[in-house]
Amino acid sequence: MTHEEKLDRLAEVAVRIGVNVQTGQELIVNAPIEARDLVDRIATHAYRAGAALVIPFFADDLIQRARFREASEDSFDFAPAWLYEGVAKSIDEGAAMLTVVGTDPMLLADCDPARIGRAQRAMARAMKPVRGLISGFATNWSILSFATPGWAKSVFPGEPDPAARLWDAIFEVCRINEADPVAAWHAHVATLRARCDALNARRFAALRFSGPGTDLEVGLADGHLWAGGSATSKDGTACMPNMPTEEVFTMPHRERVNGRVRASKPLVHGGALIEDIEVRFEAGRIVEAKARRGEDVFRALIATDEGASRLGEVALVPDASPVSRSGLIFRNTLFDENAASHIALGQALALNMEGGCDAARGANESLIHVDWMIGSALMDVDGVNADGTITPVMRGGAFVI
Amino acid sequence: MTHEEKLDRLAEVAVRIGVNVQTGQELIVNAPIEARDLVDRIATHAYRAGAALVIPFFADDLIQRARFREASEDSFDFAPAWLYEGVAKSIDEGAAMLTVVGTDPMLLADCDPARIGRAQRAMARAMKPVRGLISGFATNWSILSFATPGWAKSVFPGEPDPAARLWDAIFEVCRINEADPVAAWHAHVATLRARCDALNARRFAALRFSGPGTDLEVGLADGHLWAGGSATSKDGTACMPNMPTEEVFTMPHRERVNGRVRASKPLVHGGALIEDIEVRFEAGRIVEAKARRGEDVFRALIATDEGASRLGEVALVPDASPVSRSGLIFRNTLFDENAASHIALGQALALNMEGGCDAARGANESLIHVDWMIGSALMDVDGVNADGTITPVMRGGAFVI
Ligand SMILES: [Zn+2]
Ligand SMILES: [Zn+2]
Ligand SMILES: [Zn+2]
Ligand SMILES: [Zn+2]
Repeated sequence: MTHEEKLDRLAEVAVRIGVNVQTGQELIVNAPIEARDLVDRIATHAYRAGAALVIPFFADDLIQRARFREASEDSFDFAPAWLYEGVAKSIDEGAAMLTVVGTDPMLLADCDPARIGRAQRAMARAMKPVRGLISGFATNWSILSFATPGWAKSVFPGEPDPAARLWDAIFEVCRINEADPVAAWHAHVATLRARCDALNARRFAALRFSGPGTDLEVGLADGHLWAGGSATSKDGTACMPNMPTEEVFTMPHRERVNGRVRASKPLVHGGALIEDIEVRFEAGRIVEAKARRGEDVFRALIATDEGASRLGEVALVPDASPVSRSGLIFRNTLFDENAASHIALGQALALNMEGGCDAARGANESLIHVDWMIGSALMDVDGVNADGTITPVMRGGAFVI
Repeated sequence: MTHEEKLDRLAEVAVRIGVNVQTGQELIVNAPIEARDLVDRIATHAYRAGAALVIPFFADDLIQRARFREASEDSFDFAPAWLYEGVAKSIDEGAAMLTVVGTDPMLLADCDPARIGRAQRAMARAMKPVRGLISGFATNWSILSFATPGWAKSVFPGEPDPAARLWDAIFEVCRINEADPVAAWHAHVATLRARCDALNARRFAALRFSGPGTDLEVGLADGHLWAGGSATSKDGTACMPNMPTEEVFTMPHRERVNGRVRASKPLVHGGALIEDIEVRFEAGRIVEAKARRGEDVFRALIATDEGASRLGEVALVPDASPVSRSGLIFRNTLFDENAASHIALGQALALNMEGGCDAARGANESLIHVDWMIGSALMDVDGVNADGTITPVMRGGAFVI
């Protein structure tokens, strides 16, 4: 297959398996401007599938950089709230959403962390209505990625053709090289579904993570639900929120997380790199935090609001996942979170609790939701049953349940 | 000067003279995706001038083409009304708007005119709130252009480097080659201002156009105002709506247009080319219409609504304008309307009537506003005074007033 043929397969999988756009539905596509070729192919497949209208929003990293270089101090509290209100209205009226990610993780590496924090807070506030609808699956949506030059260079520094290397990895983990990618995705979804069913049957009170630098108990929310693979929107449309996806995930109790945890991979957030995070939780809240690099950005992140220093998600990923097997650090959460078990600071996900998010049963609330990798081949995970007994869940990064 | 230096000058003139963005103001930038380099430079100059936030919307002609090739019949009545509602809200709250045009005029040349008409009607309906605010100068705004490959090729078919030729023309008519482009623009605005003052002093009841295929009397609206060059937004910010701009223009009376008129240049509308239009007006309305090419599209256009077959603008442009001197047909109204006197079908402009648009005094209303070239070196224009006497205004395409 040529690169163009693979790109076209990716567009088709994104449209048919990812967002699964329905006849007569509007489709909003968010993408970096470099992804134009993929977006054009997405539009073609979407119209072929019966989409009423494809509405592309192209983001331009260079404008973001121009802002950090030239804008006055006041600028950093602004975000286009009116735009996201419109997007929320559109989703509410039935539009589907496909988001292509590929930001250069080092885009804002040399920018003032305080400004990055302010800009992110303003953006998070503006996007709150959209985030609520997306996390509540008010519509069918999906996220996939595009190997932009900036991202590729930061994953493969010094290589002659970084984008080609990154594309190889993306096509592999997105199952584009399979004889029939659509069938391969269906089989994969069945595996994740079986794993969720087993975990849901156990009704664990908590999970215990043990590994280098980590001794953490994550109490699970009352009425928590495990999810993974495909999801179903309110109107009954199946979609694949993340491509790739290897995780099964559920809702921690916002007040029942205790102990120490060390990140197993770098976190890229808001264009800055945060390395070697170590935090301590007490009664659900981070009470100590440090990082060898990007500590300022991390501290600004967890200070976003009250819920930003508490957990909204805990996820299990086998160390043998295709993303992990690639041996790469993608510096992109969509990939790296599928290489390792992880926790997420901030907003809980409605699909992880019976009847949706309920603070009384432990659901966390925040403007942010930031996944952060803690798993590795050295990580053991135990389930704590309601009666205090222990059930092994993962050993050395592999499922044993 | 290198091409990059000229592009940077164009961006600076667009920001400082064109839209004249104010400290703390949001700036919406609409542009074809090919214009990214110019938009990035616009963002830099806008932030340098104190803009709070630059919000780019990149349009992708290829997605538009994918739609006409692949979408189901129902698609063509859809437009993202929620997006334009949001834009209208943003303008209402003070955002400025800069629009970069450069669509390939032949983009939809082989598409079904009925579908083009439906899509345009849907778009015009969705954009109505924005159009009202823009034509009423609720904010400072400007339109400039970018030599996209598709547009350049259609202006210079068969030339080795069409974009370079088109850029030469754009830089020239936008006064970018002058030693001090900003000073050159100020001098040009003074010329247009003097012309408007002279015409406003006359209070003509009508204009008479005489030339090959044309014998047309355009009655002017009661309380009409001549405008041209710079405009002033409601909050008092001066801006240059069109770059280039060579016209002075006013409001026809929607019921007082009579006679025959023949187009002097092709009209490019909705990606289709309409050539050799000839129409006859009676009591303000088009009662006969034909075109050698694109007649279907033209007929669909004037059938958009009741006001689409009446005039909303009449404009005078000397045949010696820089755009006309270039000898080119740009297939882009922003340029071609500055090469020749023209009339516009559809919506009247609030700034062309004392106290704003008033139907009782002759202001036309429509979802469309389409300029259409009728002037040439062979065109004479007379002013008809209230007492029926005649004052020569243009002879052989040159002002004599
Ligand atoms: Zn996750
Ligand atoms: Zn997550
Ligand atoms: Zn005009
Ligand atoms: Zn006009």
